[in-house]
Amino acid sequence: MNSSPAQLLSAQNVNQLLDSVQAFLFDCDGVIWKGDKLIDGVPETLHMLRSKGKKLVFVTNNSTKSRSQYANKFLSLGISVTEDEIFSSSFAAAMYLQIINFPQHKKVYVIGEQGILEELQLAGFTALGGPEDGKKTAQLKSNCLFEHDKSVGAVVVGLDQYINYYKLQYGTLCIRENPGCLFIATNRDAVGHMTDLQEWPGAGCMVAAICGSTQKEPIVVGKPANFLMEFLLKKFDINCSKMCMVGDRLDTDILFGQNAGCRTLLVLSGVTTESVLQDPSNKTQPEYYTSKVSDMLELLRP
Amino acid sequence: MNSSPAQLLSAQNVNQLLDSVQAFLFDCDGVIWKGDKLIDGVPETLHMLRSKGKKLVFVTNNSTKSRSQYANKFLSLGISVTEDEIFSSSFAAAMYLQIINFPQHKKVYVIGEQGILEELQLAGFTALGGPEDGKKTAQLKSNCLFEHDKSVGAVVVGLDQYINYYKLQYGTLCIRENPGCLFIATNRDAVGHMTDLQEWPGAGCMVAAICGSTQKEPIVVGKPANFLMEFLLKKFDINCSKMCMVGDRLDTDILFGQNAGCRTLLVLSGVTTESVLQDPSNKTQPEYYTSKVSDMLELLRP
Repeated sequence: MNSSPAQLLSAQNVNQLLDSVQAFLFDCDGVIWKGDKLIDGVPETLHMLRSKGKKLVFVTNNSTKSRSQYANKFLSLGISVTEDEIFSSSFAAAMYLQIINFPQHKKVYVIGEQGILEELQLAGFTALGGPEDGKKTAQLKSNCLFEHDKSVGAVVVGLDQYINYYKLQYGTLCIRENPGCLFIATNRDAVGHMTDLQEWPGAGCMVAAICGSTQKEPIVVGKPANFLMEFLLKKFDINCSKMCMVGDRLDTDILFGQNAGCRTLLVLSGVTTESVLQDPSNKTQPEYYTSKVSDMLELLRP
Repeated sequence: MNSSPAQLLSAQNVNQLLDSVQAFLFDCDGVIWKGDKLIDGVPETLHMLRSKGKKLVFVTNNSTKSRSQYANKFLSLGISVTEDEIFSSSFAAAMYLQIINFPQHKKVYVIGEQGILEELQLAGFTALGGPEDGKKTAQLKSNCLFEHDKSVGAVVVGLDQYINYYKLQYGTLCIRENPGCLFIATNRDAVGHMTDLQEWPGAGCMVAAICGSTQKEPIVVGKPANFLMEFLLKKFDINCSKMCMVGDRLDTDILFGQNAGCRTLLVLSGVTTESVLQDPSNKTQPEYYTSKVSDMLELLRP
């Protein structure tokens, strides 16, 4: 959609953006917070947007939490957000299975954390694996047959800080040996701000590991895949051109917004630096960019 | 080299093969053994080949052991093999660093097992990580900065049954943040017969995980890369056309042999089935194929 260079958000263009947009879709990591630390000025900015009647939606590729866990995290940081406003890739995985009518008698094996398990269970599915398998070990011994559940019909892979060989073998066996078993990735982010000071391997790391052992490619449900946006559009009755995706990543957030025909605003408070944005090798240009979300508020001040 | 269909090894052609070959290069997993179980008839076949004056070389992508550990494994299975006859991908990683004059004051971080550490140390390098980091955990907490050694100049990734998030973060940080840090893969086998009854995720799984988090591609030193064969050819003064690579994998063993201009023999005692070999989608055809190594002995019997 946008091949012209990104414009710096300014006192001149911020009003035009705010006036023409009905809903702001926010990424969370690197936009709202870094790890467990809120980014400066976020609560005031969200308050200003709500007071102007803007709809707010929070779209995160981080699958470690469920929507309800995210609502609690927002609350603990002093921001009131309802579950309905949250679209996490953990929820997207559950919604994907629901939309394709994944049979209820089949099970889902999870390489990932609590958020995926919770969303799957809320959607009525039987989930195995996840944190429970984090302390299990695989024994490479003679005559040892690693047993797996033949009724697993989907393996969902997301960020998993308790990744181990047991889970890798379990997921690999299901995908290789259970006929028709789906391989679903919550997202493929290479790294993310799992803590405020540092980037850590993201779901892209665990997903690639399973690609490596199964030699298969996953169905991706998080950003920048269209699935999440289509689901979101069905839920809210707003024209794409009146929505603005605000994110810190070119390859997920901005691409996600552009793929859907949304307006886009890149913030430099997360993984993308200005030099990466301006580098000639970068082909993804947002419509606007700014240092952080609260610039919207600052720029409106007379 | 070979695009014509593989010939079944037979009483008619086995003599021609044996007469024209001076050295047999054997893969180990799925050829000599499965996990810790010897495949039937292997000792007698190796004995017959040695008695005919053939040179034997064992070339394995499994990096979990060093050459000395492999020699012990052979001995424990009743086969006498010297370290000089063994070329493991753990050794290949150390030889690669030696050949490129990797500075001795730089360190090597290992995602892998004891074999890589041993070979690196034997070659005079300082290695970090490996089994020692298998029980370490990464804490995703605010203000937690994961420290890594800035003098790490290479990350070597191989099969690691103790893979965890700590190691993934350590390797990722070195590759992303230490200027010029090399990313070396012992091999990229998707799966392997780590036990006799079952296939398990191979080094390709761990290597892909690091590709996923770093978005970089590794230098591969094991099969089917040319590095190992070039090293091997420098060591033995035998023309490639007088060497026969015997293996159970099309994408590593047979390709490795063909890339170098060797004769090739596929055995069906490991990961490749006859239907995979004969499938029209398979483009890699060995010169010969047979069910197992000891068929060579059986077919010679009058």
